[in-house]
Amino acid sequence: MSAPCAISALDRTAQAQIQARIDNKTKPQGALGQLERVALQLALIQQSERLSLPSPTLLVFAGDHGVAAEGVSIAPAAVTRQMVLNFLAGGAAINCFCRTLGWQLKVVDAGILEPIEDPRLILRRLGAGTANLAQTAAMSPAQCQQGLQWGGEVARREIAAGAGLLAFGEMGIANTTAATALLAALTDLPVGDCIGRGTGISDAQLAHKQALIEQAVARVAGQTDPQALLAELGGFELVQICGAILAAAEARVPMLIDGFIVSAAALVACRMAPACRDYMLFSHGSAEPGHARLLAAMEAEPLLDLGLRLGEGTGAALALPLLQAAVSFYNDMASFESAGVTV
Amino acid sequence: MSAPCAISALDRTAQAQIQARIDNKTKPQGALGQLERVALQLALIQQSERLSLPSPTLLVFAGDHGVAAEGVSIAPAAVTRQMVLNFLAGGAAINCFCRTLGWQLKVVDAGILEPIEDPRLILRRLGAGTANLAQTAAMSPAQCQQGLQWGGEVARREIAAGAGLLAFGEMGIANTTAATALLAALTDLPVGDCIGRGTGISDAQLAHKQALIEQAVARVAGQTDPQALLAELGGFELVQICGAILAAAEARVPMLIDGFIVSAAALVACRMAPACRDYMLFSHGSAEPGHARLLAAMEAEPLLDLGLRLGEGTGAALALPLLQAAVSFYNDMASFESAGVTV
Repeated sequence: MSAPCAISALDRTAQAQIQARIDNKTKPQGALGQLERVALQLALIQQSERLSLPSPTLLVFAGDHGVAAEGVSIAPAAVTRQMVLNFLAGGAAINCFCRTLGWQLKVVDAGILEPIEDPRLILRRLGAGTANLAQTAAMSPAQCQQGLQWGGEVARREIAAGAGLLAFGEMGIANTTAATALLAALTDLPVGDCIGRGTGISDAQLAHKQALIEQAVARVAGQTDPQALLAELGGFELVQICGAILAAAEARVPMLIDGFIVSAAALVACRMAPACRDYMLFSHGSAEPGHARLLAAMEAEPLLDLGLRLGEGTGAALALPLLQAAVSFYNDMASFESAGVTV
Repeated sequence: MSAPCAISALDRTAQAQIQARIDNKTKPQGALGQLERVALQLALIQQSERLSLPSPTLLVFAGDHGVAAEGVSIAPAAVTRQMVLNFLAGGAAINCFCRTLGWQLKVVDAGILEPIEDPRLILRRLGAGTANLAQTAAMSPAQCQQGLQWGGEVARREIAAGAGLLAFGEMGIANTTAATALLAALTDLPVGDCIGRGTGISDAQLAHKQALIEQAVARVAGQTDPQALLAELGGFELVQICGAILAAAEARVPMLIDGFIVSAAALVACRMAPACRDYMLFSHGSAEPGHARLLAAMEAEPLLDLGLRLGEGTGAALALPLLQAAVSFYNDMASFESAGVTV
């Protein structure tokens, strides 16, 4: 893949000047906490006197997983398709949050089991679900390469249409299994430290899920190339999200990273091209235990901690107003001098 | 004061039905975390099939404090007035956040040192700053009673004009000293467990602040009546916020409680009329250490934890989109049946 080579780390020449502007706003230094760090990062990304977040766009990628046949989720694989129909009908949580908070929402079929005919659905099907990652590679290297390319194209199209902020969501029954396997393989953490109950499986299902992931991680032992691990352990939605992240970073467009699944794709992207970390803002800490490990691996501090464990991009959607608030204070808040306030 | 008697606890008859509606949305049970608790509380308050938060209104009350002369803050008392002018000019953080997030913002002079002539400023001056609470009662019982009444009137006027959600902010140099004294006196916690650096005082100033607060708390030892303690240790902005909270609860209007200062006023209100707790949502955990004590005293779990320590109502302002998101999923998210999703 050639895209990562084109991703540049942030130019930090103006950092002290940006920080001075933040410190000279009419407030005690640091009193806006994490919002000040958000403003600094956005200012470094945009390198502009005034910040802006036009047409925030949230791309939900859906894919099915061969490992779902092993019973690692509370829901059957058919629910992936049912939920895509729910997204298209506007009835899911992510629809409600996007309508309320001002996101444009697009849904991508990255490879669910049974296709849906709907002109609103973006079709980038890599197959009818992945293979069972516990037994064999989830997808071929060619599928993985194609997925990275397609994800990048989808992101670039939205950026060309004016999106100044991207976020990603996902739907795929059993995708916490794939994300957990990626986390363990990329970090060498024990699977037991990375695993969780996803949407709420039993103790027996959890033990089974752990055994399957350990089997998958053992299968790829010695493999350290992130793209190869993505093909072995990933999912069609995960690979396309990874491609979209790389493309957004290449275009210097900020991204709001969602919870456990999207963060796993983000970690793969960071391993492929470390500079893309500079364009990521982290929306929330998920209730899924492995998410804290993913955030730590990316040295990320999320904005929200609401006990969410839904996916779909819901955490990223909810964090948008905090970015907008950071932009507004950076652009429009008075300085001590302009307001005549005693320092 | 007669108002508290008219405050009713929530009617929880419909609680199981509301919870079933939340549980039957197309998501795993509990997967929206704290937003589900917000939706339940709003549904219990509004007792309506569809929830709404029309004309959210944030009232900033400003007042000066006699104890500021003791040097307990990084800023001189003159900054209270300068910041009120900044609010009126639209240049403070709270202005930026209210414009961006859709709050109506009103500013009340509850008793700053030197008056401001500006038709946009709501004048409810209880005096030209309080007396020094380390030495004597901050205000007379009559001033306190008047402040509760005025704060209630200001809130009721906004409610009559259509506000379906209220929040409160404050400005008053040295008001963390007053709030800390109230916290210690109301909870019997040692002052050392309640105190913090406010906007950023030195070790020496902190020790001096602690000695003054201990002196004030010792002065009122044995007094347990919350309204009497409010007069002894409070501030003109604190007493009017307390009155506004009691009035909002009486009108069954939900409130977003801000950080340390507003939470101190909220604790006084809860001690005067415990049922008003039912109408409070807690926006954020402040970096000021005593805030966690106040939240614990009200058994409150805040929505945000962004390291804010600015006041002005900024934390409350930032939490509005989370309430709007909770309303949107409660009103418009599909059920398993309506979306055809396998349970």
